[in-house]
Formats: sequence, structure tokens, C-alpha cells
Amino acid sequence: MDYQKILENIYTEILPYAKEGKQADYIPELAKVNPDQFGMCINTVSGETYSFKQADTRFSIQSISKVFALAMCLSIKGDNLWKKIGKEPSGTAFNSLIQLEIEKGIPRNPFINAGAIVMADILVSHFEDPKTEFLNFVRALADNDTITYNEKTAISERETGYLNAAIANLLKYHGTIENDIETVLHFYFLMCSVEMSCNELSKAFLAFANHSRPFDYASVALTTSQVKRMNAIMQTCGFYDEAGEFAYLVGLPGKSGVGGGIVAIYPMLYSVAVWSPRLNSKGNSVMGIKALELFTTETKESIF
Amino acid sequence: MDYQKILENIYTEILPYAKEGKQADYIPELAKVNPDQFGMCINTVSGETYSFKQADTRFSIQSISKVFALAMCLSIKGDNLWKKIGKEPSGTAFNSLIQLEIEKGIPRNPFINAGAIVMADILVSHFEDPKTEFLNFVRALADNDTITYNEKTAISERETGYLNAAIANLLKYHGTIENDIETVLHFYFLMCSVEMSCNELSKAFLAFANHSRPFDYASVALTTSQVKRMNAIMQTCGFYDEAGEFAYLVGLPGKSGVGGGIVAIYPMLYSVAVWSPRLNSKGNSVMGIKALELFTTETKESIF
Amino acid sequence: MDYQKILENIYTEILPYAKEGKQADYIPELAKVNPDQFGMCINTVSGETYSFKQADTRFSIQSISKVFALAMCLSIKGDNLWKKIGKEPSGTAFNSLIQLEIEKGIPRNPFINAGAIVMADILVSHFEDPKTEFLNFVRALADNDTITYNEKTAISERETGYLNAAIANLLKYHGTIENDIETVLHFYFLMCSVEMSCNELSKAFLAFANHSRPFDYASVALTTSQVKRMNAIMQTCGFYDEAGEFAYLVGLPGKSGVGGGIVAIYPMLYSVAVWSPRLNSKGNSVMGIKALELFTTETKESIF
Amino acid sequence: MDYQKILENIYTEILPYAKEGKQADYIPELAKVNPDQFGMCINTVSGETYSFKQADTRFSIQSISKVFALAMCLSIKGDNLWKKIGKEPSGTAFNSLIQLEIEKGIPRNPFINAGAIVMADILVSHFEDPKTEFLNFVRALADNDTITYNEKTAISERETGYLNAAIANLLKYHGTIENDIETVLHFYFLMCSVEMSCNELSKAFLAFANHSRPFDYASVALTTSQVKRMNAIMQTCGFYDEAGEFAYLVGLPGKSGVGGGIVAIYPMLYSVAVWSPRLNSKGNSVMGIKALELFTTETKESIF
Repeated sequence: MDYQKILENIYTEILPYAKEGKQADYIPELAKVNPDQFGMCINTVSGETYSFKQADTRFSIQSISKVFALAMCLSIKGDNLWKKIGKEPSGTAFNSLIQLEIEKGIPRNPFINAGAIVMADILVSHFEDPKTEFLNFVRALADNDTITYNEKTAISERETGYLNAAIANLLKYHGTIENDIETVLHFYFLMCSVEMSCNELSKAFLAFANHSRPFDYASVALTTSQVKRMNAIMQTCGFYDEAGEFAYLVGLPGKSGVGGGIVAIYPMLYSVAVWSPRLNSKGNSVMGIKALELFTTETKESIF
Repeated sequence: MDYQKILENIYTEILPYAKEGKQADYIPELAKVNPDQFGMCINTVSGETYSFKQADTRFSIQSISKVFALAMCLSIKGDNLWKKIGKEPSGTAFNSLIQLEIEKGIPRNPFINAGAIVMADILVSHFEDPKTEFLNFVRALADNDTITYNEKTAISERETGYLNAAIANLLKYHGTIENDIETVLHFYFLMCSVEMSCNELSKAFLAFANHSRPFDYASVALTTSQVKRMNAIMQTCGFYDEAGEFAYLVGLPGKSGVGGGIVAIYPMLYSVAVWSPRLNSKGNSVMGIKALELFTTETKESIF
Repeated sequence: MDYQKILENIYTEILPYAKEGKQADYIPELAKVNPDQFGMCINTVSGETYSFKQADTRFSIQSISKVFALAMCLSIKGDNLWKKIGKEPSGTAFNSLIQLEIEKGIPRNPFINAGAIVMADILVSHFEDPKTEFLNFVRALADNDTITYNEKTAISERETGYLNAAIANLLKYHGTIENDIETVLHFYFLMCSVEMSCNELSKAFLAFANHSRPFDYASVALTTSQVKRMNAIMQTCGFYDEAGEFAYLVGLPGKSGVGGGIVAIYPMLYSVAVWSPRLNSKGNSVMGIKALELFTTETKESIF
Repeated sequence: MDYQKILENIYTEILPYAKEGKQADYIPELAKVNPDQFGMCINTVSGETYSFKQADTRFSIQSISKVFALAMCLSIKGDNLWKKIGKEPSGTAFNSLIQLEIEKGIPRNPFINAGAIVMADILVSHFEDPKTEFLNFVRALADNDTITYNEKTAISERETGYLNAAIANLLKYHGTIENDIETVLHFYFLMCSVEMSCNELSKAFLAFANHSRPFDYASVALTTSQVKRMNAIMQTCGFYDEAGEFAYLVGLPGKSGVGGGIVAIYPMLYSVAVWSPRLNSKGNSVMGIKALELFTTETKESIF
């Protein structure tokens, strides 16, 4: 399939949406990004790479980091992980405290903030140096040693991160997290602050698409079945309370972040990363979702 | 792949669970079914059929009927359907009034009861004789003219269906349904009362699996894209508040009913129906889910 | 105290609010009332009566009827009543289904609609002719045999009463009500449809204010302690989700209705009824609440 | 009335409940109190004092401190206070985050933890030395300069106070509190840690009962109307989600704390304090509530 041509067609079609939505601005580091950017990259299982526009520009991956954290936690805990975190879609906004209180401190799934804070706690408990281990894993996935944290972003998120601090305290109250709240939150925000380009993200997610290849990167090893199950969770929970809409329009498992990035995979075929900072009201990139919708429509490739 | 052999293996493995769970007993017609039954059937896109045990015994399809109703409503309304019904997973029990009240009478998705009652209303408004049209569609899908309603089941469900009546009244209050409440509820329960065997259900769902073939049955025509999107909704919303668990364990789009039936599809490969009346606490067949989990594990075929 | 003079002063002060708010218009009978009316009446324990403006005009008492129903149910069931109904303020809008679902069909208190529907069910179960018994009790309290139902109001409320029908079905689902839903709802709306004037309401509520006198009217007898406890419930639950505001501003136990009536009592001193059809956003009469606030301010008489 | 005799009678009647319930044990300072203690004290407006049993033993006043905080905040802010805090009963457990999230960071009333944390913030903003000002006010009310904080209690409550920290973070997120979270929480827990005896509490609350006397203590002055309105809030919100039950059984405005203390007032007649550490499931003293119920039954004095 001529993916490069398709990327060009898509771009023409999504241009009318270029000014729709608003970038995340609750922290200075995200607010100062130029919102009028767009990048996209596809990596196929057979080895080709298709890049488009600003596919090399790094941005804050934010919640996309939750997929990396889940891979690490699954390799550490196996199915015991699900004693502390559910795997059902949340049905309410990604930062809701309500469900967490009703369900006595067990987050609905690993991709809402509460779930990711629990994963941060698990990694802090398990590793002597979680900060290095996490980065090593991401670097191994993307095969790129220059990927790193933006500590300034992490610190400024913590400073205004009252909602996440509320969540962490509620988790601690219910006994779901073990470590000191500040330590856990700091590491949580650090993971979110990693900066990657579309090229790097797409490369990193190829490991989830290509599950015929052994999943073994840095300290993290997963079975084929575990990789497939992670993909299932991306499908049902990857897009906050727009997971159903994304499944309906795009039909691929994936994960988005408020930095404007979205990654998706077609198992045994390709991974795709897209980035554009302007977000819709659900916190997902406007042009990103549009681009992926057109992409699966034009390629006629959805998992359904 | 030797599906017949796999079916036999699966059966041996799930036998230890044969007495787990409890059949639905809130209406006499469901309560009097012998709970110790099991049937399974696979239909491949390439034309083979694999039946196992009581694959010919008919049972009440109950909520599986919601998939048929959705196909009809999508063919009538197209994407306008989504003005009256959402397509996000519900995150709470399938009969919850809470979300419906908070979201002002717009059901979360077509597969919770509230959504299906709205679909019943749409069909009542659209067709002069919805009862005949619905049956004709199901018969055409399964290529079997003996499939029919069990009116006794429908009537006895209405008699004790206070929760669904509460839902219908709340929908009417919010203006989501147009017709007389009793008419809508009667038709809703009628659709649920259709009786089909695993063989017939599997046959009927092959139309969703094989979307390379035009979807055109009785009064219902859908585009390939619409069929795929229905499959996406089955994936995210088909199993009440166990949708995530099912995606994780089985990895196929599908739909379950409290009669103990489950249907699932692997797009462009096969459809599969399984039936066993004993249910888990979420209202899904214990042996049915177990059988499908083993099936995708042994065949190594999940969409992820 | 010169109550007549105080009434006149109050009226001057509340005139600026005469066009604020909007009368209930969800049923024709309430919508066609002239909204620009005002009446007030005080009855003292020592025997005086002070009437003002349209104190003789009858209006639909609506939820004020719940106090009469409670008196009847308490005399029938005693403290066993509280197995079916709570006595805590509801904290959410008066017609909320959410709390009812969370608390498994036990209404928060007798003065939300759910609670009153349960009371209607109790009266239907207890009396051969609840319709006559209810009216006889109200007539005895007000010492006036011309008070009666407005059946037209009752019927038109039932026709559009989808929310109350949803509540009744949910109560039936949880087993809180015993009788046929339509019978219970019809009687519920009938009680609400009673028409009384400020003079008659004030007279009727004097029985609650003057608890040194035996409470024994038609079929209903209460102990002093029971009357006091009813007053306590009026204090904490009498004004939907504005109970705290009313206690703060007025400081008297009482009950309001969407017909624009409010009754309040000062134990061992007086009862007071006020009526004006325009309602605030919480469903309470704008001029009514204002008048009572000024009344307790000017008389310096609140129970606190 | 022979209050001393009544106190003795009450004690005989409540003895069977002496081992019911369980003292608060979530912090060491509360857990190590001997649970088998009971004290009671009445102060009349006419100047008599009736003490009984351990009426001189000091205990942690905990949430009773919220009444003192409210008096201070009302004197500072007047009715502007109600822009930041509601005055409706909460309808859910006293520490619920759900309502706070739904209502966008405005606590339901000043007597739930969220409301008191907002009041702590107001006092921290207003006073240079809130710690001294609060103590001076309480000492002036009780006319006793030895009353003081138990800093050990305050510190150990903060250490395990994850739920209150979650609330404070949520308040900060919604902009309801201005100051640094740790400063506010520290002062909140400090107020709760004040230790007083029944004699001292009853004396302090006489100021609320006797509103014919000017309310002017240390830095705090309130009008008669403000005192009455505070009493109204104690009535509707003083007992967590048991406010309706307390109004029904006891019929007096008051406030309880998890240290086992309860204070109530009969306006223009008396104040009464009772203490016993064992709590019911709602967090109110078992013997305390029982004693007050019998007290108003035997004296036939409830405000209703």
C-alpha cells in the first residue's frame, strides 16, 4: 500500500480542522508549544517507515507513558497486577475521583490517572532506581538513547497537580499505594514528561504491533499473550471517555496524551504515531483523531 | 485449523466449571431451562461449520437481540442514531439508572437496556409492523424461517420488568422516546424473547464477520464501514461491565445475553456462538466465557 | 404582637420581588393560575387568626399533602414506618432517582417524591377507601368539609408524570411498594391535587403547632412526641434541597409545594401559610420564602 | 426542673448501652482513651450548672471545633461566607469527595470536613496568628484560660490524614482555598485537637443558647440573628448523615465529634454537653445520643 501517498491525501483533508481545539495550557511547558504543528509516522511490521511533516519534532508524551508503565508492571506482577487495578473502561472523565471513591481505591483501569499513579507506586517499590529503569525501557523500545525526561515539565506539573495529589491521597487512604505520596507523584509526573517524536513513538509501539517477535527490552519481557492483552486494554481504555468513539471511527487499539500525541497499532501490520497539539473537549488531539480516522478509512484497515 | 478437535479439548478443560454460577431465574421461562447444558458452533468465512454438543438447542437470545436492533437502526438512521444514543462503554451495571439521569436521558450505548429501549422506540416509529420486520431480518440473517418469538417469555418479562419500565419512563421524561411506553416495552421484550440455537446464532453473525460480502438482509442494508463500526461497538460495549475483561481474556468483538448465550466474531475469519445457562455475577455465561477464552488461546487468534 | 401590622409591612417589602420566578407549568391546571397572586394567614395557638390579601383563594397544595400523608402513616405504622423510608435530608433534587438506586429503593425521607409514593402505597394497603380517608383527615384538620380533590389536576399530572412513574417502578423493583403501580400513582397524584386556601392550610397546621392539644382527627391519632418528631422532619426535609437555606433564613419547620404554597409552624405559638405561584429554581415560592424570612425577622420569633 | 435527678435517671437507662460501639482508633491519641467513660453537663440561661460523672475530664473535641470556626468566619465574612460554602445538609458521609467533585469544590456545609478546611483557609488568610486567635476565642467562650491544643494529636492526625489531604487538594484544584495546603491542613487538625471537658463545652455553648446576651468574645462578635442562624445550621447539618435522626430523636441543634463529645442547645433555655467515647457507625457517641434523646423526652423540652 502506498502509505506515503495516503499521508499526503489525509493532510489535505484535515487542513480545514487545523485551527480547531485548544492546546493544553495548564502548565507553562505545554502552553508554550506552537499549536500549529502536525507530524505523523508509520512503521510497518515488514520494516518500512513513512514519515510526514514534523515527524521528528519531540513533544511531551504525557499519558502515552502509561502504556510503557503498564508493560513494566505486567512484566513484574503478571496477572496479580489486576488485584490493584481494574481493566474496565471508566465511563467518566479520566481524572474522576468519584469512581475511585465508590470503588474503594481500586482504579478502573491502568490508563486513567489513578491507575497510572498506582503503577508509579509499583515501579517505585520494585526498582532501586525506577527513573533510570523506565528510561532504559523506553529507549530500548525506540532504539534511541537520546530520549529523556523534561524535568522542568515534571516539576511544574507537580506544582499545580492538585487533582492528581487528591487522587494519590485517596489511593493512600485506601491502602492501594505503599510509598510516600510525594515520591510516587514525582515519578508519575516524570514518566509523563518524557519527550519523543512521532518517529520515535511509532518505532517504540512497533513492539506491540509485531507480537510474533519476542518482547524483551531492557528489564522488560512479556509473552505474546501479554502483549495482545495490553493491546486489548488500549482498545477499550486508551482514549479517556472517548474510547468508544475512537473504536468506532478508527478501529485500532491506541493511546493518546494531552501533549497532542496519539499512537495506534494494527496488530501484525503496523504502528502509527500522529501529533498535533490542539485538543478536543475530551483531551484528544483534533487533527490526530481525524488523521487516524481517514487513515483507516483510506487503507480499509481496521481490526474490525 | 482443526476446530472440531479444539472444541473437544476446550470442553474437557471447562468441565470443572460446569456447576459454577446460576442461571437467570427472574422470569419463569428462563428459570425452567435445564442449567446443565452446553452448546457451541463455529462458522468460518470460507464456509465450514463446526458444531458441538447441544448446538441445535434453542434458547432465549435476550440481549444478543440488541445487535440485530442496532443493525436495523443504523440502516434507518445512519449516524443520526448517535444523537439519541452514545457509543461509549457504560462503566456501571447494564441496568443503571444513574448514568441515564446524569446524562439527561441519553443512554451510554446501544447495548445497555436503556439504549435498546430507545432502539425499540425507533423501530416502532419507523415500521408499520416492527414485529414482523424484526423477525424477517433475523430469519434472513440466519437463513431459517422457523426462528420466532416466545411471546410467553416476553409477557412474563414485562410483568416483572419494573426496572426496564423505570428506564422507559425516564427516557420518556427526557424526550428520548416518542411512542407510548407500553408499546415500546412490549416490543423491546419481544425482541429479547427470540429463541435461537448456537448453530443459528453463529450463522446469523457470520454476516458481521464476513464484511467483504454485501450486508443486505430483508429490509436491512449496511455498508462495510457500518458493519465494521458495529463490530467496534460489540468490542467496547458488548459485555455489560465486563467488556474490558472479555477484551482482555478473549479479544474478540461479541455480545452476551442472560439466557446464557454469547456470540463473537473474528473479522474475515469466523463467527462463534456458545451457550450455557449458568451466569457469573456480571450476567455472562460462566462456561461460555471460559470456552471462548480457551478458544482464542488455543487458536492463537485474537484481533489483538 | 400586632401580626396584622407586620403582614402589611412585609407585603410592602416583598413587592419588588413580585415578578421574580416562574410558576409551575408542566401541567395545564397549574399553568393557567394567575401568577400575580399573594395570600397569607396566621393562626395562633391562643386562637387568633390574621388573614391578608388572597388568603381565601384555593390553590393546589401539591407536596404540602406529604405532611398529611406522613401523619396518617405514622399513626398506622408507628416507628416501623422508618423501615421503608429514611428520615435524613436528601442533599439532591427532590425527584432524584440516583439516591434511590444507590440506597436500594429506600427513599431518603417522606418528603421527596419517592417517599410520598411509598406512603401512598401504605395508605392504599391499609384503607379500604384511602381516597375518602385522606380527605376526611384533611377536612377534620382544617375543620372544613368543602375541601376536595381536583381530579382534573390529578389525571393530567399522571399523564405527564413520567419521572414519578420511573420512581414508582424502581420502588416496585426493590420491593418497597406492594400495590399495583397505577393504583399507587393515581392516589399519590390525587393527594397532591387537593386544593386549599392559606386560611385553610394555616388552620390545618395549627394541629402540629399546638401539640399540647390531643392530635386526634378523623382516623388519625398521634402522640405529642410523634407530632414533635413530624415537626423535626419538616425542619430538616421540608424544602427539597433548600432545607438548609430555609432553616437559616426563616428558622421554622414547614413544607412547600410547587403550587406556590408554604406552611410553617412555630411550636406552641402559631402556624402560618403563605401562597404566591412564582417559584425559584429550587421549586419554592419566591414571595413565600421572602415573606416568611421577613416575618420571623420582624417578630424576632424563630425556634433557634 | 430537677435536672440533676433527670441526669441520674438517664444514666440508669443508658447503662445497658455502655459497651455498644467502638471508639475512634485511627490515631494513637484517640485510641488510647479509656472507652468506658461518660460525662454530662447542663448550663442553664438562668445561671445553674448541673454536672454528672466525668464532666471534668477533657477529651478531644474534634469536629465540635467546626462550630467555633464557623462563628469566627461568620464574624469575618458575614453572608459572603456562603459564596465559598453551602448550608445544605450533605446527604452523604461526612468525608465524601463525591459531592465536592460534582459541586465543583464548594462544600455542602461548614460542618463536613471540606467545609471546615475552607474555614481553616479563611482564618489563615485573615489572621496573622490564627492559632492564637482561635484559642483565645474558645477560652473566652468557656471563660477558661487553661484550654489548649494537643499538638501531638494534631500531628498524628496529619500523618494519617490522607482523606483530608485529598479533600484539601481538590479544594485547591477548584480554587476554593488560597493558602498552602500543608499550612491549612495543619491549622485544621490543630483546631480539632483542642481538648475540653463537658463542663467547659457546655459553658462555651451557653453563648449560642443565650442569644439575648451580646455575643462578643475575644475577636469574635456576632449579631443575634447570626447566632440564631448558626443554631439553624447546627440543627440541619450538625450530625454528619445522622442529622435527620438526631432532629427526630432529640430535637435540638447541636454538634458531635469523633472524640465522643456532643453539645446541644435549647435556645433561651440551656446548653448541654455529653461525652462517651464509643461511637455508632455514623461516628456519633452511642451513649451521648441516647442520653440526649432521654433528656429531651424526660424534660419534654425539644424545640419542636
